[in-house]
Amino acid sequence: MDFYEKTIATKEIFDGKIIKVRVDTVELPNGNTSTREIVSHPGGVGVVALDENNNVYMVRQFRKPLDKVLLEVPAGKLDGGEDPRICGIRELEEETGMCARSFEPLGEFYPSVGFSAETLYLYIARDLYPGKVHPDEDEFLEVEKIPLDTLVEMVMDGRIKDGKTIVAILKAKLYLEK
Amino acid sequence: MDFYEKTIATKEIFDGKIIKVRVDTVELPNGNTSTREIVSHPGGVGVVALDENNNVYMVRQFRKPLDKVLLEVPAGKLDGGEDPRICGIRELEEETGMCARSFEPLGEFYPSVGFSAETLYLYIARDLYPGKVHPDEDEFLEVEKIPLDTLVEMVMDGRIKDGKTIVAILKAKLYLEK
Repeated sequence: MDFYEKTIATKEIFDGKIIKVRVDTVELPNGNTSTREIVSHPGGVGVVALDENNNVYMVRQFRKPLDKVLLEVPAGKLDGGEDPRICGIRELEEETGMCARSFEPLGEFYPSVGFSAETLYLYIARDLYPGKVHPDEDEFLEVEKIPLDTLVEMVMDGRIKDGKTIVAILKAKLYLEK
Repeated sequence: MDFYEKTIATKEIFDGKIIKVRVDTVELPNGNTSTREIVSHPGGVGVVALDENNNVYMVRQFRKPLDKVLLEVPAGKLDGGEDPRICGIRELEEETGMCARSFEPLGEFYPSVGFSAETLYLYIARDLYPGKVHPDEDEFLEVEKIPLDTLVEMVMDGRIKDGKTIVAILKAKLYLEK
């Protein structure tokens, strides 16, 4: 079955600091036309950083879209064309003050495929040592160390609701059990 | 620590079929101002539907934002104010033709907290029986049954990249192990 939707026209709606918005008119497999509202985003990274006792460095941060403080893995946006691994190493140090001797990929995923072209790259960081803390200007967050198994419980009972953090924690748990 | 960002001004950018876009000017905890680009979305559901042999009903679907066919759990958007459970039951039947005698929540999560206000509600459906198939007009998808343990492998080796599907499959796996 051929699913492909050919783009017939594109209308640019918004070109912001972080996101871009466009509406594509597409031809459906049955020949009908429809529109697709699409948000572009530079993509980003999330890092599960574990100390020698399987405690994970987590951050609490206010998220304006939800008007809530959320518990998340350290994360950040790619700076135009940046290598995700470099971005992950940078963001981990900026947000937690820690560097890692071991920094392995946990895979990438698409957070919201219905309307967003965003890709997130996940890493697991181990063998940590203190770097120099220099948080982003205007970034307000609190760092907290929480055991990995407690985080898995917090995912399952709904205390953790951030999508990338759920994916990162559960993938890290399974990765370490291999 | 007080993280709250007070909204000083809101500018509406786009009011589409599915998403809305606005730019909020906020006052940061240190008194500086910044802007937040925010996408609103009606929210949606994802359903892990298991047969008696722990095979999961999955759908393959073209996703224009990524220009790719993705393997996903059955899912759909909330129709204005709709109860997520009702939406999940409806979408499962529309996409796979199956109804469920057991339909339990797997929790909700926020797919992309940096710019999106979307909430997704997950369910696990069991004790299935055939309903009446009536796919949405202009929805093109293929249904496939895949063992849950194979799906977990496909999450871990990167063959599954849809965020809600990763969260749904890994949470279902842990839920069933309880």
